[in-house]
Amino acid sequence: MRDLSGRLEHLSLNTATVRGRWGLAEAIEGCARHGIPGICPWRDQLQALGVEEGARRIRNAGLKVSGHCRGGMFPAADAAGRRAALDDNRRAVDEAAALGAACLVLVVGGMPAGSKDLPGARAQVQDGLAELLPYARAAGVPLAIEPLHPMYAADRACVNTLKHANDLCDDLDPDGEGGIGVAIDVYHVFWDPELELEIARAKGRILGFHVCDWLVPTRDLLLDRGMMGDGVIDIRGIRGLVEATDYDGLIEVEIFSKANWWRRDPDEVLCIMAERYRTVV
Amino acid sequence: MRDLSGRLEHLSLNTATVRGRWGLAEAIEGCARHGIPGICPWRDQLQALGVEEGARRIRNAGLKVSGHCRGGMFPAADAAGRRAALDDNRRAVDEAAALGAACLVLVVGGMPAGSKDLPGARAQVQDGLAELLPYARAAGVPLAIEPLHPMYAADRACVNTLKHANDLCDDLDPDGEGGIGVAIDVYHVFWDPELELEIARAKGRILGFHVCDWLVPTRDLLLDRGMMGDGVIDIRGIRGLVEATDYDGLIEVEIFSKANWWRRDPDEVLCIMAERYRTVV
Repeated sequence: MRDLSGRLEHLSLNTATVRGRWGLAEAIEGCARHGIPGICPWRDQLQALGVEEGARRIRNAGLKVSGHCRGGMFPAADAAGRRAALDDNRRAVDEAAALGAACLVLVVGGMPAGSKDLPGARAQVQDGLAELLPYARAAGVPLAIEPLHPMYAADRACVNTLKHANDLCDDLDPDGEGGIGVAIDVYHVFWDPELELEIARAKGRILGFHVCDWLVPTRDLLLDRGMMGDGVIDIRGIRGLVEATDYDGLIEVEIFSKANWWRRDPDEVLCIMAERYRTVV
Repeated sequence: MRDLSGRLEHLSLNTATVRGRWGLAEAIEGCARHGIPGICPWRDQLQALGVEEGARRIRNAGLKVSGHCRGGMFPAADAAGRRAALDDNRRAVDEAAALGAACLVLVVGGMPAGSKDLPGARAQVQDGLAELLPYARAAGVPLAIEPLHPMYAADRACVNTLKHANDLCDDLDPDGEGGIGVAIDVYHVFWDPELELEIARAKGRILGFHVCDWLVPTRDLLLDRGMMGDGVIDIRGIRGLVEATDYDGLIEVEIFSKANWWRRDPDEVLCIMAERYRTVV
């Protein structure tokens, strides 16, 4: 297991963590100022800055790009909606390629409005992935399926376990050609009794590892994530399982926190984040 | 699959659904008034009325008791805490016996305060169940393990999938002697890609079937459940799977809804609940 107590060499900032106050330009400068070597931007912020300009600034700051957030959202109520989603995913792949991102993170989408057909949404996700994969391979951008916590099954991502994500990878890439894998966020998977087994099974296809913490109580389903150490997740234990698969990529901090971290001075957030990375992660 | 469109013969009211305004005495009278043949009381409300008095009133109203809510909460920080939890569970078994309840519903408990050891909590749950089971068998009260949604893993119940609950039943009752089974609440399990498989596997040990709905958006992790039909759960589909195992017990409505249903006139709630039972469940 890697020793994180010294330099911040494996740390990456998902810019959502400071989006309460910072756009992408400020986040890039913040990473440089705090010695954080990695970044994962969000599409809206990248587009606001301009894709080429954002990529240039990230390059000039010497940052690695742990991922691009996010593609996915495949299911739609009709064929036109599904085509539009695929077109948008291709643009996301192009952006990730421009950034030199380690992967395109996929939040796969939930049920279309009014639908109660979860198996149908899951089939649409599989079809969408199958259609996107050749394009992503040609662009050299690995697709990272991120299983989201089951509380997002209906409206955000109907892939809710690492087992399901691993099954999709097996189905879509039966020969191990690559180009598709998983992103593991402790927040989404810590509860899973199959976690140890499925992390081992993900060996060689873990494209991203994300950390934050689960607060007790959690006051909002989406925007009340905790800083590492403030919650109940055995983050180091999960990191141990991930690194036992020989994962040696960046460790990305992604915290949606409307009532707390988004309100604070982002420089303070980065200071605390770096300290917790060294001591808790 | 049973036809629910006519009489309410399989409907049961979990009294939590109307606890915003009614105690147990009012809920019993409400069931009688609305032709609802089943009830599932909560311990605090039963104790407030008196166990014998509550049991007498339920009997006099001619109600079946689909379950008693709730035992469980096994994990504790120390041995004294675990003993206290077991003592309390034995009292819950006694109450369920006094009520003639079809089962004692178990919300198994999460991690003790300050702990990040989910496997440890799960081991404590298994140990607690093993210790309680002979007592419950002697009292003639089946124990119903209710897997709770993964969003409750930390602080409420660390059994979060029907697979885990089935595994526990297999481990604790390897010879199929009975006395332990599962309670299936659509709210907790609808997201699970293994659901069909695990419901089939639960054949013969389904002790309770609970319905409500998952709202989009859900505004509170605990107290924002929806009335059947107002959310995204394919309730009838899940009921079909449950009844395909020959389950012929009551269908219990349990809705925690601080901002909506708990504020309404409980007689109105029961009217709407009966209508939705006939048309949506």
